[in-house]
Amino acid sequence: MSSTAITIPTISDIRSAAARIRPYAHRTPVMTCHSLDARVGAQVFLKCENFQKVGAFKFRGACNAVFSLSDEQASRGVATHSSGNHAQALALAARLRGIPAYIVMPSNAPAVKRAAVAGYGGVITLCEPTLAAREATLAQVVAETGAAVVHPYNDVRVIAGQGTATLELLEDVSDLDVILAPVGGGGLLSGTALAAKSIAPQMRVIAGEPAGADDAFRSLAAGQILPSAAPNTIADGLLTSLGSLTFPIIQQHVEQIVTVSEEAIIAAMKFMWERAKLVVEPSGVVPVAVLWQGRLDLRGLRVGVILSGGNVDMERLPWQREAQP
Amino acid sequence: MSSTAITIPTISDIRSAAARIRPYAHRTPVMTCHSLDARVGAQVFLKCENFQKVGAFKFRGACNAVFSLSDEQASRGVATHSSGNHAQALALAARLRGIPAYIVMPSNAPAVKRAAVAGYGGVITLCEPTLAAREATLAQVVAETGAAVVHPYNDVRVIAGQGTATLELLEDVSDLDVILAPVGGGGLLSGTALAAKSIAPQMRVIAGEPAGADDAFRSLAAGQILPSAAPNTIADGLLTSLGSLTFPIIQQHVEQIVTVSEEAIIAAMKFMWERAKLVVEPSGVVPVAVLWQGRLDLRGLRVGVILSGGNVDMERLPWQREAQP
Repeated sequence: MSSTAITIPTISDIRSAAARIRPYAHRTPVMTCHSLDARVGAQVFLKCENFQKVGAFKFRGACNAVFSLSDEQASRGVATHSSGNHAQALALAARLRGIPAYIVMPSNAPAVKRAAVAGYGGVITLCEPTLAAREATLAQVVAETGAAVVHPYNDVRVIAGQGTATLELLEDVSDLDVILAPVGGGGLLSGTALAAKSIAPQMRVIAGEPAGADDAFRSLAAGQILPSAAPNTIADGLLTSLGSLTFPIIQQHVEQIVTVSEEAIIAAMKFMWERAKLVVEPSGVVPVAVLWQGRLDLRGLRVGVILSGGNVDMERLPWQREAQP
Repeated sequence: MSSTAITIPTISDIRSAAARIRPYAHRTPVMTCHSLDARVGAQVFLKCENFQKVGAFKFRGACNAVFSLSDEQASRGVATHSSGNHAQALALAARLRGIPAYIVMPSNAPAVKRAAVAGYGGVITLCEPTLAAREATLAQVVAETGAAVVHPYNDVRVIAGQGTATLELLEDVSDLDVILAPVGGGGLLSGTALAAKSIAPQMRVIAGEPAGADDAFRSLAAGQILPSAAPNTIADGLLTSLGSLTFPIIQQHVEQIVTVSEEAIIAAMKFMWERAKLVVEPSGVVPVAVLWQGRLDLRGLRVGVILSGGNVDMERLPWQREAQP
C-alpha cells in the first residue's frame, strides 16, 4: 500500500462508466424465478451477468478501464496477470478499442482458458504458477511494452465499471430492500455497494463468500486485511483476497458478509440450472447460496442478486464430480 | 380419423388464446447470442420457452384448453395421458383454474416426473406402459369423472395456445425471414406455422426433427401420416408422431422438415449451455441443430427459433453419458 490518499469512485464515476461502456457491453436482463422465490421466501430479482460479454460482469470493469485511457496511453496497450474471466474481459475490451492486451497466465492454466484469451486476441505470456512469478513477468511485460496495467479489482476504473450492473438493476427494479453480491477481491462488491448506497442509502448491501475462502469475512471482523493463505472452494472466481482499495469501501458500505458452505453452493447452482434454466457458475450462485442456507432472514423482502457469471466447464459439473469418487 | 370436417385454428383463435392465457403464462424473453450468430452465419432470435411455466411451451396450449372450458365442463376436471411436459402443464393449468387434473402415466415413468405432476396437484393414475393401456385407462378415468380430455397436440385449443409463442416473437422482432421449430406430434409446429403465415405470408416455416424419430419428414414426403414404429432419440419430447389435425396444417404451411443427427443435437445443446448460458432440453435445441449442421443455407438471414423447453435431468447429461461407456 502506498501512502497517497485513496481515491474512491463516486456515483458520478459509475454513471460515466455506464455511458462509456454502453456501446460495447450488454444491458443484461433482470429475471425472476417463482420456484426460487417459493424456496427462499423472498422476491428475488436476478441481474443476469452470466449473459454479459465473455460470460461475466468482469467485462464491465475491463471495458471501462480500457476506454478510460487516453489515445496516447491506449496505443501502448493494456496488461494484466489473470487466468480467469478478467483476462478474457480485458482481451476483448482491448480488441474492441483496437489495442493490444498482454495477458500473463500461469503455465498450469487450463488449455480452454488460454484458448479463450487467445480467441479474443490476447497476447499471452506464460510464467511459473506462483504470485511472485506472475508479478515479475507482468513487470517485465510492462517494461518492454509500456502497456497500462489493469488490475482485476484494485482499480478505481474497474470498480466503477462493475458498479454499472447495480445501476441498471436499480433502473429496472424499484424498492429493493437488500442487494446481494459475491465477494472475492471485492471489485464487484465495492461497485455494487457504492452504486446502491448512493442511489438508495437505506438499502442493505450483503455479500456472500465461500467459507473456504473467507478472507473478507475475517478481514471485516478484524478491521484489517487478512488474506486467505490457502483458499479452497469450487467458486474459483472468489479465491482472491480483498485489496487496499476495495477493503475500505466494503468496510464502510457493506452490512454483513455471510459465508456459505460448498454444499450450499452446489445445491444453489443445481437449483438455478434445473429450475431457473440459467447456467450460472459456482462463484455466481454464492449469493443465492446465502438465501438457500436460510441463516439470514430475508423473508418477505425484495432482494436483488448479482449473478456474476456463467462460465462453466460442462465436462466437470460439481454435483457429478461428487457422485464419482 | 373421423369423417367430420377438420377444424383449423385461425389467427383469431391464436389471438384469443393469447388474451386468455396472459394472466397465467409468462411472456418469455427473446434472446440473442453473438457466438451462435457467428457459428451459423445468421441473425438468430431465440424465443425462450425454457423460461415458460413448467419449463416448456406446453403450458400455453394446456392453459388455453383449460380456460376455454365452460364452468360446467370445467367443474368435472380435465384428463390426459402423458409422462412428459404436457402432464405437468395440464396439472398446473387446472390448478390455476381450481379444477382437478387426472393424469394417466405409465408405471415406468421416472419418479421425478411423477413427483412434478403431483407437485402441481395432478391426480395420477398409473397403468401398464403400453399405448393401449394408457388409452384404456384414460377412457376409464373419463367415464368415472366426466373430465374433459385435453390431447397433447391433436386439439384445436392446444394448437392455438402453442401459436401464441410465435405471436409474441413476431411482436418483439420484425422482418424475420425464417422461423424454425421442432416437430414431434406437431402441436407447436402447427401453431407456429399458422401464426407466422397469417401475420407474414412470405415467412418461411421450417421444422427440425430428430433423424431417429423422422415420421413428420417421411409423412410429408409420402403425403400421408406414417407414424414412427420405434422412434429413438435423446430428444424425448419428439418421440410422438403427427396427428390427424396437425398433419394437414403442416402439409399446407411448412416449407421443409430437416432431420438432424443425435450428434448435432448434443453439440448444439452443449453450445447453448456453454455459450448462450441457457439450459435447453434436447428437444428444444433441435432447430438449433438444423442451423448447426449447415446443410440448410440460411446464411445472412434473420432467423427466429422456438427454444421449446428446458427440462433436463442434471444427473444425466448427454455429453457425459457419451464419455462414460
